[in-house]
Amino acid sequence: MAQARRRRRAERPRGGGAAIPRLPWRKLRNPLPPIEVLSADQVEAIHEASLQVLARAGMKVTDDEARALLRSAGAEVDEAEQMVRFDPGLVEESVAKAPAEFTIRARNPAKNATIGGNHVNFAPVGGPSFVSDLDRGRRAGTLAELADFMKLVQCFDVISVAGVSPFEPLDLPPQTRHLDTYEAVLRWTDKVWSTWLLGAGRARDGIAMAAIVHGLTPEQVAAQPLTYGNINTNSPRLIDGPMAQGAMTFARARQPVIVTPFTLAGAMAPATVAGALVEQNAEALAGITLVQVASPGAPVIYGGFTSNVDMKTGAPAFGTPEQTQAAQATGQLCRRYGLPYRSSNTNASNCADAQAAYESEMSLWGAVMGHANLIFHSAGWLEGGLTASFEKLIIDVEMLQMLSEYLQPVVVDEDTLAVEAIAGVPPAGHYFGEAHTLARYETAFYSPLVSDWRNFETWSEDGGRDAAQRANAIWKQLLKDYEPPPLDPAVDEELTAYVAKRKEAIGTSDDAVDR
Amino acid sequence: MAQARRRRRAERPRGGGAAIPRLPWRKLRNPLPPIEVLSADQVEAIHEASLQVLARAGMKVTDDEARALLRSAGAEVDEAEQMVRFDPGLVEESVAKAPAEFTIRARNPAKNATIGGNHVNFAPVGGPSFVSDLDRGRRAGTLAELADFMKLVQCFDVISVAGVSPFEPLDLPPQTRHLDTYEAVLRWTDKVWSTWLLGAGRARDGIAMAAIVHGLTPEQVAAQPLTYGNINTNSPRLIDGPMAQGAMTFARARQPVIVTPFTLAGAMAPATVAGALVEQNAEALAGITLVQVASPGAPVIYGGFTSNVDMKTGAPAFGTPEQTQAAQATGQLCRRYGLPYRSSNTNASNCADAQAAYESEMSLWGAVMGHANLIFHSAGWLEGGLTASFEKLIIDVEMLQMLSEYLQPVVVDEDTLAVEAIAGVPPAGHYFGEAHTLARYETAFYSPLVSDWRNFETWSEDGGRDAAQRANAIWKQLLKDYEPPPLDPAVDEELTAYVAKRKEAIGTSDDAVDR
Repeated sequence: MAQARRRRRAERPRGGGAAIPRLPWRKLRNPLPPIEVLSADQVEAIHEASLQVLARAGMKVTDDEARALLRSAGAEVDEAEQMVRFDPGLVEESVAKAPAEFTIRARNPAKNATIGGNHVNFAPVGGPSFVSDLDRGRRAGTLAELADFMKLVQCFDVISVAGVSPFEPLDLPPQTRHLDTYEAVLRWTDKVWSTWLLGAGRARDGIAMAAIVHGLTPEQVAAQPLTYGNINTNSPRLIDGPMAQGAMTFARARQPVIVTPFTLAGAMAPATVAGALVEQNAEALAGITLVQVASPGAPVIYGGFTSNVDMKTGAPAFGTPEQTQAAQATGQLCRRYGLPYRSSNTNASNCADAQAAYESEMSLWGAVMGHANLIFHSAGWLEGGLTASFEKLIIDVEMLQMLSEYLQPVVVDEDTLAVEAIAGVPPAGHYFGEAHTLARYETAFYSPLVSDWRNFETWSEDGGRDAAQRANAIWKQLLKDYEPPPLDPAVDEELTAYVAKRKEAIGTSDDAVDR
Repeated sequence: MAQARRRRRAERPRGGGAAIPRLPWRKLRNPLPPIEVLSADQVEAIHEASLQVLARAGMKVTDDEARALLRSAGAEVDEAEQMVRFDPGLVEESVAKAPAEFTIRARNPAKNATIGGNHVNFAPVGGPSFVSDLDRGRRAGTLAELADFMKLVQCFDVISVAGVSPFEPLDLPPQTRHLDTYEAVLRWTDKVWSTWLLGAGRARDGIAMAAIVHGLTPEQVAAQPLTYGNINTNSPRLIDGPMAQGAMTFARARQPVIVTPFTLAGAMAPATVAGALVEQNAEALAGITLVQVASPGAPVIYGGFTSNVDMKTGAPAFGTPEQTQAAQATGQLCRRYGLPYRSSNTNASNCADAQAAYESEMSLWGAVMGHANLIFHSAGWLEGGLTASFEKLIIDVEMLQMLSEYLQPVVVDEDTLAVEAIAGVPPAGHYFGEAHTLARYETAFYSPLVSDWRNFETWSEDGGRDAAQRANAIWKQLLKDYEPPPLDPAVDEELTAYVAKRKEAIGTSDDAVDR
């Protein structure tokens, strides 16, 4: 066991930056029991309150097809108000149909991702409009920089899932930029990737391109998840047309849909952790019910994103104590329902400083010890999600790698207990030259990526660079040395042709995307 | 319950920097079950291996009186080698005599500290030779700056225990600087404080000055702990004379002794987590046995300080994944023995950057979720403990406050579940103006000390200062506004007289300190 661990650690990823230490690929599990901040009774109270909200107040659903589906399943629908009220039985039956665990195939089969149980998957930041680094500052995202960001995502095996758009490529037309983004993630990474669920068209394009990569017909896709997508409810209590269409399209293709209410306590949810969890839970269950009604048994993931705002200014806050509590409480709700759980690594800092790190750690301990299975925004998120930072990406990878190592079981056996070694070292001696030490000195402990453990004098003489400055040098070196994962030329050609064909069909028409 | 929580949060500490938000005094407990990284069998295996080490290899004890005591208690002593071998029965019987929990009196009775159970106490950094801040850089410590540091410790109620010497006042002679340091901590703080256990004299001076502050005769002191002290074994396997004398003096005065092996895996302990824990556990049990033999039933605290070194360079590393595991495993050992537990908040960064924060968070989650009762170095530690940083002090306080808030139980009742409030906000509306929100907007969530949640533009226009720069402004403001806690003039006079008298007696003689 100790031998196996050492071997794993000694491997180095192929491709760029060989001199930069990184953890090798690992199907990460959390062997520790989750931290539970709620009692079983409190979980039930939140569950019951959510059902009350869904039954009495309901959700507004602005998509006609979704409302019709829900009505036919037994929900009470007010067409004039577009309000859907859910019978508790419908919700509980629907949620019970969803699988507790499933595996999403990656184009590199070694990197398939299992979602559920005690599996932990880290996905990079997604969604910002801006990108930043120490050299060029903060600016609008472009496709070229998105490709660079994706290449870095590929460089780190601890980022087990590639996501899709670490930031928006704002240099491209909005109607077709999803195609370029999908192509970039499929070309520069070989990991599980995500599709945009903003309308049926973008969802179908994701499915079609996944089918190309795996050499399947779109019909065959339904046999196994090949990608995943996330919808956010427009909290409070609204599921809009594009989100509903995206979710239903994915559900029918049996691709996993994450339903994530955007419940910042004090703004889009009550100013209490319990109340925000009720709001989140009601909206998540409504979205999951829609998915199950559209396609019973389709894979879904419960998304928790409850944090709070600064009550004095309304500014969003992340990595707060309340977010940590909510993340662990959400894990309890997910386990109650037997659903996989998505959480996030967030912070509200404007630069990659101590605040960015401690808020991220509070998020990560909330998510990881809440037993989240898929952790969005794990690497690169800054400014409350408005910016993707190249330096924060590197610093986050260090934090993720440290957590991944922390989750490796402590090996306790005769060899590691080292009684003979201890007896052999004289009082006030040292272990540096001991056989027990030399046998494992290369792989005994985690080797850091960014952390600088040199003494103050050496560090000062070498420029006294802080973690962000060191991270800057690391991502540049990795990009310089990057080598793309192999892609079958026939698949490459087919992908390119698909994107070209769809771009021609869509043009600059908003409507054509979904036709 | 919710009302009580709000009231607590609304309080502001009296004294300096009224505009700077801080958590009020709180007797912090960790209501969550500890994280346990070891199985019960693994705990037993480490325990058994430690007993083997103590029985076969033993500890070198260079103090004659300590060896004599241990021999009379049944240990096997080799006087030529100064080696003491411990029978497992002696160790187990001795450890069983120590109390599981006790309270240390502060000069402000509201700030008494309970050590044991699920109590959590944060003490500031202790021990460095250097002090640093952004304005003046890194320099040798002085008494004047030590006083400033202590004043800041007093400003933050989350630092529930004052410690003693955040750094050494190197401007003072080594033989008497402990007296000035004790006087400073007693004058500038009203919290539980620590005594140096470097020899019997410094321990006796601490007891004498505690007696003065509490208006007791030195003989009456034994009725209740009034201070505490820490000894480090000289790992591996050595208890030196000054430490033994300090520990025995304190034990006989029934003041709590912390026994902390200095077990950096790969240097002073084997290069495995399990082996380093065996080394730590053997040495801690040896020290605790000495204390119990000297004074059965005297309060002791098990100190865990296992981290690792960088195996390539031998440099100490802190806040590593291995340290987090060791901290939580140590909690398991302490609970097995029914002993209170001391851990640390550490990092190896050379500046108050992201590394300093994420390594500290890894330490803190290890300590807090390992159910440490007293966490040394909680605020201000930098450079692997070589420097006390004014900015890191502030950043650490933010992290401590966030953890303190995280540990407050989530309140789930009709009021916080907020079903009516949720039903009253229209879909895609917001909660800002709602009665439920307004009723709690001032106290709903944690108010940060250092975190800046303003948007990028506002933050940039205001100078774009990172967390360390903002921390710099905070400690200066707090020092400007600082007001000392009231001290009875008669006590003040008596303290001053004691210090003067002892300084005269000691002069610059190393021997006179202990006479």
